[in-house]
Amino acid sequence: MGSEVNTISRAAPRKLTGKKQEIDAFIDQFDYFLFDCDGVLWQGNVLLPKVVETLEMLRNRGKKLVFVTNNSSKSREAYSKKFAQFGIPVQVDEVFGSSYSTAIAISRVYKIPPGKRVFVIGEEGIEHELAAEGISYFGGSAPLPFPEDDVAEHVGPDPSVWAVVTGLDRKISYAKFAIAGGYLQDPNVHFFATNIDSTFPTHGKLLPGAGTCAAPLTLMTGRTPIAFGKPSQAMMDSIEQKYSLDKSKACMVGDRLNTDIQFGLKAGLKGTLAVLTGVSKEEDILKAGEIGEGPDVYLDCLGDLLG
Amino acid sequence: MGSEVNTISRAAPRKLTGKKQEIDAFIDQFDYFLFDCDGVLWQGNVLLPKVVETLEMLRNRGKKLVFVTNNSSKSREAYSKKFAQFGIPVQVDEVFGSSYSTAIAISRVYKIPPGKRVFVIGEEGIEHELAAEGISYFGGSAPLPFPEDDVAEHVGPDPSVWAVVTGLDRKISYAKFAIAGGYLQDPNVHFFATNIDSTFPTHGKLLPGAGTCAAPLTLMTGRTPIAFGKPSQAMMDSIEQKYSLDKSKACMVGDRLNTDIQFGLKAGLKGTLAVLTGVSKEEDILKAGEIGEGPDVYLDCLGDLLG
Repeated sequence: MGSEVNTISRAAPRKLTGKKQEIDAFIDQFDYFLFDCDGVLWQGNVLLPKVVETLEMLRNRGKKLVFVTNNSSKSREAYSKKFAQFGIPVQVDEVFGSSYSTAIAISRVYKIPPGKRVFVIGEEGIEHELAAEGISYFGGSAPLPFPEDDVAEHVGPDPSVWAVVTGLDRKISYAKFAIAGGYLQDPNVHFFATNIDSTFPTHGKLLPGAGTCAAPLTLMTGRTPIAFGKPSQAMMDSIEQKYSLDKSKACMVGDRLNTDIQFGLKAGLKGTLAVLTGVSKEEDILKAGEIGEGPDVYLDCLGDLLG
Repeated sequence: MGSEVNTISRAAPRKLTGKKQEIDAFIDQFDYFLFDCDGVLWQGNVLLPKVVETLEMLRNRGKKLVFVTNNSSKSREAYSKKFAQFGIPVQVDEVFGSSYSTAIAISRVYKIPPGKRVFVIGEEGIEHELAAEGISYFGGSAPLPFPEDDVAEHVGPDPSVWAVVTGLDRKISYAKFAIAGGYLQDPNVHFFATNIDSTFPTHGKLLPGAGTCAAPLTLMTGRTPIAFGKPSQAMMDSIEQKYSLDKSKACMVGDRLNTDIQFGLKAGLKGTLAVLTGVSKEEDILKAGEIGEGPDVYLDCLGDLLG
């Protein structure tokens, strides 16, 4: 069976059957499994079937698990509490979110100079991770320090501002866009995004994703942000470094072709596995396969890995 | 001098000198002057020099004046009050705003069916013009009819919704984007915009323009709105019809290359005149001229037409 598995082609996504031998051969190729969460482990507030058992099985077989999420509204700590609520045991260190990815890029890769600060469009998740990295920030969930109607008076350059960072902000406002757009007029001010997802699936609905909090700034300034969520390879680089990941033994598991599967393919991971419990449908997967952008294999749901 | 004027080439913007003969020859070519307002007549709350006298001079010479604005936040009536505050005499009927343009397109060109309604992201201007055309609408300046945090429950199709209309909305919110994005999932729901200006210049600052209220919806749905402001020819068609405009005797006057001047050029108006009191600078104008997108002539300010 091993040779059969090795002939899996990225150009032709294959649905894994329930045969134990085939599934075992698939799993045995990998030491690391990177998981997207929403649409793979759960849908909104509903845990998907046999997820706890599947993750336990993988751990028992010695696999290293990393939970990779573009959700920027929660810190790793807050996000790991969501796992606990579902009865999924995780360590905070196994959770890798786009806000964390952004914070470590700012402090360790781009190395924000002392005395400089970051203007945040986003929620507690990005604020928490920036603070944990010792990065000075303002904006975010704090109320505007001036009446909203006076925003024009407060738009303009600020030499202390080194970057604008956008993530999902469900309290977005005209004033926040105006202030951020003003800073970004200065080409020396960096433009970062935790992620640029177009939508945020929840409760079976497609709500606006973090990308909608960056798009108005792109229109205003002609600038596109550097994004640190999937499918950005900046996120993969950080994961690789943090977990000493061996890409030739890693598999990305996700429900979205244009973020999760792209993320694994662009990184050249050994494998990619799609599940049909989220955004992308079987027809999308087969279509993507025709242009070489499909996953290696797919399953109806993650629990099918139990055989 | 007449022949000299006739050799004006669109490919080479020419600065009108202060010579009376040259200015008269320029003016005499036209029966209609279409004016952009902000950046041409005034800057924010400051009237520009000699504007009242210049408009009076044109009227005295029998020219028909139309004031064309992308400002969607004010109705024609409210906008004409702004003229009065500056001491510029205008009739409401001489003011042609993007909200009015949108409302008449919905009622008279697209012919919204009875019993259908429009979801508005925008301010009083568009609401007023929709009401004046007898178009049923909701959203707009009304408070959300549910708690903001419950938005996911309210996202979804609504058979009564025939179109989403976006304009400048300085009370924009995540919930409004979510609701509008939900309606636009249905490809039968029209997506209209009063205009898609990237920025809104005021008090010497660049604030977010109406386009920033549409951009997140474009990202979410992959759809771009049909816009009824400059430089959309839908707006020119309405102007042509309403004023029995003869394009071969009309000149567009504006401060912005990518809206005002484009608007005149695309329509094939006899002339385009740029002024340097707004967004586009002399270097921008000369650069645009190199690719055939510059105005015929330009002036430091409108008042220079007095000679």
